[in-house]
This record gives sequence, C-alpha cells and structure tokens, in this order.
Amino acid sequence: MATTTALRASDVPRAYLDHASSSPLRPACVEAMLPFLRDHHADPGRLHAEGRVTRVAIEQAREQVANLFGARPREVVFTASGTEAVNSAVWGALARAGREHQHVVTTAVEHSAVIESCTRLPTTEVTVVGVDRTGRFDADAVLAAVRPDTALVTVQLANHEVGTLQPAAAIATGARERGVVVHVDACAAAGHVDVDLGALGADLCSVTAHKLGGPKGTAALLVRRGLRFPPFVVGGAQERARRGGIEDVPAIVGFGAAAAELVDGGLEREAEAARALTDRLTAGTLERVPGVERFGDHTACLPHLVCLGVGGVEAEPILLALDQQGVAVHSGSSCSSEALEPSPVLAAMGVDADHSLRASVGWCSSDADVDGFLAVFPGIVERLRRLRTT
Amino acid sequence: MATTTALRASDVPRAYLDHASSSPLRPACVEAMLPFLRDHHADPGRLHAEGRVTRVAIEQAREQVANLFGARPREVVFTASGTEAVNSAVWGALARAGREHQHVVTTAVEHSAVIESCTRLPTTEVTVVGVDRTGRFDADAVLAAVRPDTALVTVQLANHEVGTLQPAAAIATGARERGVVVHVDACAAAGHVDVDLGALGADLCSVTAHKLGGPKGTAALLVRRGLRFPPFVVGGAQERARRGGIEDVPAIVGFGAAAAELVDGGLEREAEAARALTDRLTAGTLERVPGVERFGDHTACLPHLVCLGVGGVEAEPILLALDQQGVAVHSGSSCSSEALEPSPVLAAMGVDADHSLRASVGWCSSDADVDGFLAVFPGIVERLRRLRTT
Repeated sequence: MATTTALRASDVPRAYLDHASSSPLRPACVEAMLPFLRDHHADPGRLHAEGRVTRVAIEQAREQVANLFGARPREVVFTASGTEAVNSAVWGALARAGREHQHVVTTAVEHSAVIESCTRLPTTEVTVVGVDRTGRFDADAVLAAVRPDTALVTVQLANHEVGTLQPAAAIATGARERGVVVHVDACAAAGHVDVDLGALGADLCSVTAHKLGGPKGTAALLVRRGLRFPPFVVGGAQERARRGGIEDVPAIVGFGAAAAELVDGGLEREAEAARALTDRLTAGTLERVPGVERFGDHTACLPHLVCLGVGGVEAEPILLALDQQGVAVHSGSSCSSEALEPSPVLAAMGVDADHSLRASVGWCSSDADVDGFLAVFPGIVERLRRLRTT
Repeated sequence: MATTTALRASDVPRAYLDHASSSPLRPACVEAMLPFLRDHHADPGRLHAEGRVTRVAIEQAREQVANLFGARPREVVFTASGTEAVNSAVWGALARAGREHQHVVTTAVEHSAVIESCTRLPTTEVTVVGVDRTGRFDADAVLAAVRPDTALVTVQLANHEVGTLQPAAAIATGARERGVVVHVDACAAAGHVDVDLGALGADLCSVTAHKLGGPKGTAALLVRRGLRFPPFVVGGAQERARRGGIEDVPAIVGFGAAAAELVDGGLEREAEAARALTDRLTAGTLERVPGVERFGDHTACLPHLVCLGVGGVEAEPILLALDQQGVAVHSGSSCSSEALEPSPVLAAMGVDADHSLRASVGWCSSDADVDGFLAVFPGIVERLRRLRTT
C-alpha cells in the first residue's frame, strides 16, 4: 500500500497550508472576544454605562492595533474587511481630490479590491505600472507615472500571491514630495513583516485581521494625522466620522488581542518560524519533484508563503488531490473567490498563470504541516503527469 | 432615604432599555458561533475541505435569514452592517440606472445612512418627502415625487426613533408600476414586525442582525431575483459578485441562528411580550409624570420602542441621571452616534426635538426592566424641573 493512500483525512490531522487566505483565530482572541459576545453588547456610541464599557474596549483595541502598526490610535479607522479598507482609501482619496484630479497610479499586481476600486467611477483614469519577473514594480516607474492631475498612488507592500516585497516606502516618499496622496495595501503583509505607518511615510495604509490570526469581520484603514478624509460607508459619526455603521465590538477587541501578540518580538519570532517552514517546504519540493519552480523573489519576500509553478499539470486537480489527502493549499489569486481563474498577478509577471499553487503557514503551523505536504505532493504530481501523457 | 438613592447600579441589576440601539446577543447565537471562532476558520471561497465547512455554514445561515424575511436564499446578500446594506442599495440603484436617471425620492425621517448615501454623489438629485406629526409619510406623496428620471425610491418600513410603521408596501407597489427601483430600509423593523420581501414587493430591503439579538458585524441586503445589481464594496466575487471581501463566517452563522429563533411564531411571541412591556412603561410614565407625551403613532408602530417627549427638561441630564440610577435609555436619532444632537426625525415631525427619550426592549427584557425605569424616572424629572426653575 502506497504511503499516500494511508494518509486519508480520517487517519491524520489535516495540514492546513492556506493561512494567507485566512488563518485560524488565536485562542487569546477568542478569550478576549467572549465577554463581548456574552455580556457586553451595547452600542459604543451611547452615553450609558453599557455603552461606555464597549467604548473603552474598542479604544483599547485601537491602541493595540495602532501600536503594532506604528500609528497613533486616532489614525486607526476600523473597517469590516481589508477589502472595505481598500475601497475606502481609494474612494476617499478621489473624493477629496476634486474633479480636476481624478488620475490614479497603481500596479499590475494589486489585489482586485484595488483595481476594482480604481475603476469604479467612469471619471477616474488609471495608469497601471507593470512588474518584473519576480512580481516587483519599480519605484521610479511608478513615480514617473504621476501627473499633475494624479489624486492617488496606490501600491501594495507585498504581493499576496508570490510574496515579493515591494518598494512601497520609496514610492510613498516620492509621491508625497510630489504632493500626491499615497495608499499602501498591506493586507497580505500585516502581521508577517513590519508594517509601520510612520516609517512607511504613507498617507493611507490598509491592514486586515484575519490573515494574522485575528477575527474575520474587522480590518483597519490607517489614516495619517491631518489628512482630511471623506468616508466611504456613510451614515453615522462613528470612527470620528470616517466610517459609518455600528462598530463590530467583539471583532475589534479580537483584532486588538491579535495585535498584542505580535508586538515586543512576537512578529519577528513568528516570522522566523514561518520562514523556516516555507524554506523547508520549498527545498523539499524542489528536491523531490522535477519541473517545479518557485515564483516571486526568493529573498526579499513575505516569510509565510510560497508560490510554486508546477510544469505540465493544471492547478485544480493538484488542489483537489492534495485536499483528498489531507492538505489544504490555494491556487491563483487570493482575491478570486469562488473561481479558479488564471491569476492576473502571475500573468503580469510573465510566468505560467495556470499552473501555480500557493502554500502558506501561520501562527499555529508546525513541521507536521510541511511533512504532510511533502509526503503526498510528489506522488500527486507524478500521477497527474502520468495521466496527462497516457 | 428616598427610593431612588437606594437604586444604585451596584445594588440592583441594570435596566437595559436600549435594545433599539443594540440588543444582547442571544445565547443560541453564541453557541452557533463558537465552533467558527474556535475550529472552522477557512475562507469559504476556497476549494479545500476546510473551506467547504465554512461555505456550508454560511449557506445554511443564508437559508435561515431568507426564511425569516420571505426571501429566497439567493436573494440574501450579507453585508457588515445595516448601514453598509443601505449604502449598497443606494449605490447599486444609482449605478445601474445610468447617467440620465439620477433622481432619488426619499423621506424626511430616514436613517442618516439613507440620507448620506443619497447625497454622496454631486450628480444625484434628491427629493425629500415630509411627514405628519406621527412621523408617517404618505404613500401618494412619495409616489407623486417620482419623475421620469427617478432611479430609486428609498423609504423605511418603520421609524427607528418613534416606531411609526410606514406605508412601504403601497409605495413599493406604486413605484414598481412606474418601473422605478424601490429600497425599503427595514433595519429598525426586522425581527420586531413581519418583514417579507415577497409581500413587501420591494426590489431591495435592508435588514440588520444586532437589533434583533444577532451579532454585530453582519446584516443583509435582500435583492429581488432578477435585479442586476452592481456591488458597492468591490474586489472579489463573494456573495455572487454582489459584495467583495471575505465573509464574516461567525457573525453570519450567528445571524442565521437568531433568524431561526424568530420563525414559527417566535417573532410574534416576542413582539407581544415587547408590546406589553412598552405599553406598561408608557402608561406608568404618563400616569406618574405630568408634561410627558408619547411621540409617533401609538397603534401602528413597532412593538418594542417608545419615544417620550419630556416637557421642560433637556434629554442629556435625564439620560445621565437614569444611567447613574441603573437605567439605560437613548435620546435623539439612533444614527447620531457620539453626539447628542437634536433629532432630525423629530424636527421633521414638528415636535420638540430637544426633549425626547427613547426606551426600547428586546428578546431578554422583563418586567423588572420596566419597573427599574418607573422607579426612578418620575423623581429624576421632578428634580431636574425643580433645578431649572430655581
């Protein structure tokens, strides 16, 4: 009996290698959230004692989140998702710029939330800057696209599919010298590499909780102090009139608890452990499976994810076979939910967009997860390649 | 020693009479959510087993929510808040209508989310229809405001401050006869009176979870089958490409669990109990405190809230005194978070907007809550009136 057949889901723990899509919630977050699910429920905008309890809780969480991201508490605007944060950044930047300034500079490897936010209004003109084969855009090329009518430069801090780190800080400096608002999408990077609003020099920065072990349903747009910023979700003075709608208190408290685990060396410890796991997964795969390459930059990259190109086999059957044998990974753009479409990121890099897998680890990943992957992946690829040639 | 001084917060349970701002989470919701906080965390858009678990969970919740609101599951689009649902409704209706149809009809007593969504774009022209002294708008007056270039009629099902039920169904019928999209904001009403998308005849209907004992962080826009509907939050194919961003699985599951408690007579039972409590609170107050009146319609109204006008005393000191003595109520518009501004709803009704209190009950309210209010309210009003005249 082959090793792989013995590794059914019922026999061994699953190897969850899709933290970059969504990571399990840290136990400290669940514990922090429970009192706000069970006991404290009031609208934090109310004057009564019940409202003051939830108000204090979200302001403490705001401090924790600000602390992780080098921001002041007042610079943190909680949103319901990274996608909403990005929508808000682009909307607000265009709304404040006025009719004569409706040009946006972005890049070919942004999350679909960025691209679709930029093309929302027919009055917006978008310049999309390309990338090299590692998925990296060039700071000078991005800045060269800035025009007198540019309202916004929006670039990612790291790519969500291949992990390549981007020259976002250099772009932020250059754009601000030109008087143009800069938004950095740090949703893929937050919690895995240092994200510091001050050091980055950006006006706006999107971060999300569920990819760093915080809850779903919360994220933040960091808004540099002094930047007048019209809301995207309107209807209420919440978040200092920068985002309408009642605050999701339990989720926000959970975000704060996750952030608190990542300061004082926590992020660095987890990143080092993640790097060791993804290095081992990469090395083990390249060693055992011919015709596999790692996409993206191999050194200046996120520690917790690798994107592998598998020559000659479609991604979907690999995914399904891995799943059947207890291993969860992802393929294609992490934004194209409910669809397995060729990744626009990989297409922009000029690599084979139909044959990629993304494996990603997180705060609770272990060697066993990597072992689970390495135990079954070579056999699956071999079998699928054999099927293809017969 | 006076009765009131003995009723400090430390001595007796608090009387929470602000369910219309936010209601405690039902224990069944907490139980339903816990597995999705502790164990099942994957992105429901993913193909692996972990993703299928969360996908099944949100589709079950979608059925539960659809079932409560007389909708098909595919007509339910989960959003992060009622405010976001309203923003999405108005945005989508204007986006689908085209440049020549950018007129909106609404009323003077809508939630700020409606008003601010309608005035978001400088290209939108808004007609605001007034109300009578009970806060009710007239169906014929709303329909008479429809023009050839009207893209949307957006009206509430019941008023969030005074509880008056509105002729939304008649408006929906009339507007659809005229080929105009209708949105009904049922956020204040949902879970307290019957909200049935089919019977209402609306194209779009906003409902929220946290005001009916479900979690914060989730709500829904009901979108009639066949209505092409561009997304407001863009960036991902979630919710059948009608709302981008990862689904807040625990909150959605909790919404489903709350909805499940309200079908098969649950809503009617809770509404009857709520009506008995608010009737007793009103009668007791009017009997014991001179110069108090109840605003809004007294019969065709939401069962769970009453808005009281208190002659000669500002709302804020009453609120604070009630709070000190263990009673939580609200004043003014439920949308004007973090501010105690005169209510635009009451101003539109032509009643005294500076001297109103809203008391509201919910699924876990009891006679003790009403007793708590009645025990201290007369003394507080008397004392404040005495201070004012000395």
